[in-house]
Amino acid sequence: MEQRVCGSNRIAGCNFAIYPMTDDFVQVIQSALKEVDTSKVWMETTDIGTCVRGRITHIFDVTKAAFLQAASTGHHVVFNATYSIGCPGDTSGDTYMAEDESPLNAANSQTIHQEAAGMFSLYPMGGGDYMDTIYSQIESMKQQGIEVSSVHYATRLDGDGNSIYNGLEQVFTDVEKNGSSHTVMTVTISANSPSTKGGKKE
Amino acid sequence: MEQRVCGSNRIAGCNFAIYPMTDDFVQVIQSALKEVDTSKVWMETTDIGTCVRGRITHIFDVTKAAFLQAASTGHHVVFNATYSIGCPGDTSGDTYMAEDESPLNAANSQTIHQEAAGMFSLYPMGGGDYMDTIYSQIESMKQQGIEVSSVHYATRLDGDGNSIYNGLEQVFTDVEKNGSSHTVMTVTISANSPSTKGGKKE
Ligand SMILES: [Ca+2]
Repeated sequence: MEQRVCGSNRIAGCNFAIYPMTDDFVQVIQSALKEVDTSKVWMETTDIGTCVRGRITHIFDVTKAAFLQAASTGHHVVFNATYSIGCPGDTSGDTYMAEDESPLNAANSQTIHQEAAGMFSLYPMGGGDYMDTIYSQIESMKQQGIEVSSVHYATRLDGDGNSIYNGLEQVFTDVEKNGSSHTVMTVTISANSPSTKGGKKE
Repeated sequence: MEQRVCGSNRIAGCNFAIYPMTDDFVQVIQSALKEVDTSKVWMETTDIGTCVRGRITHIFDVTKAAFLQAASTGHHVVFNATYSIGCPGDTSGDTYMAEDESPLNAANSQTIHQEAAGMFSLYPMGGGDYMDTIYSQIESMKQQGIEVSSVHYATRLDGDGNSIYNGLEQVFTDVEKNGSSHTVMTVTISANSPSTKGGKKE
């Protein structure tokens, strides 16, 4: 394993995968991705998942759109992702930092109204004053109608899919702005689950 | 969101979920979990996933068994997990630290021979001398026949499911032993994928 040294490059990245719980999972993934414009991000897909890299705006724009498009099929779909910034390791995708900030999929995503249940954990590993930032973003999510609760090792979010992703993008962006040189955020978002919302089914 | 302060308690925990890509996902999950003895861990299941807490040995024993049992159905199944130690936040499950070290599911798991493709990232957030530990564990995984490669933000593992989990348990245990006061490891493991192994399907 080659050691990756954290650098000053501010390219963001995300390893993500979409899991449609249906026999037609290949078709659900492919048809969802066909609706997503990925031209402002570097992208690589393997048998395990997809990696996108570029500006924070576009990383969230693309991943949000992929989830919402897949969820809009009505199947039970789970989106899993790790967002990273501050540890580029190499330079693949650096040219995508030249793209402007205008998100390509926001308009389409806005048309998809999807209830979702999410969970995120933030790992700011490079200092910075992040606790106040996180608290204020959590407050802002609540004001946008997201139900926020604490679970083991994570924060749970229930509400509209677009609002959840916007909240996640905002908290990630703000932690980075407030001086964390290396930040990682893990996210799981579920839609159309047959289980009771928030219900323990032990 | 209540702030969780890292403590000295060495209870480990794992938020995990199993995603069977089939219409019968509920049945696959339920029948897999029925085969797993969880009596040495604290456990809570919600609509988003399951949290188990207790000794490192049992956390890995239970999660490995859950994945292998689900994968042995032959369906395309993905296991996703975040393992944590050093940030208990509360005391639920502390009584489970009194359990002995004998894993309850190891014998059953050993009978399941399952090719798998995994990806993990380690976030040692509490100091300690961990880079040498990680390198030496990676070497040890290779000697057990696991194919190890670097991908963006993660290390990829290809090989036998039991060997992959044993390698992950060893690296997590050793990082903790070597002084990291708070360690997080994210894991994604896929079995029976219709996509080509390791193949980029861009
Ligand atoms: Ca069917």
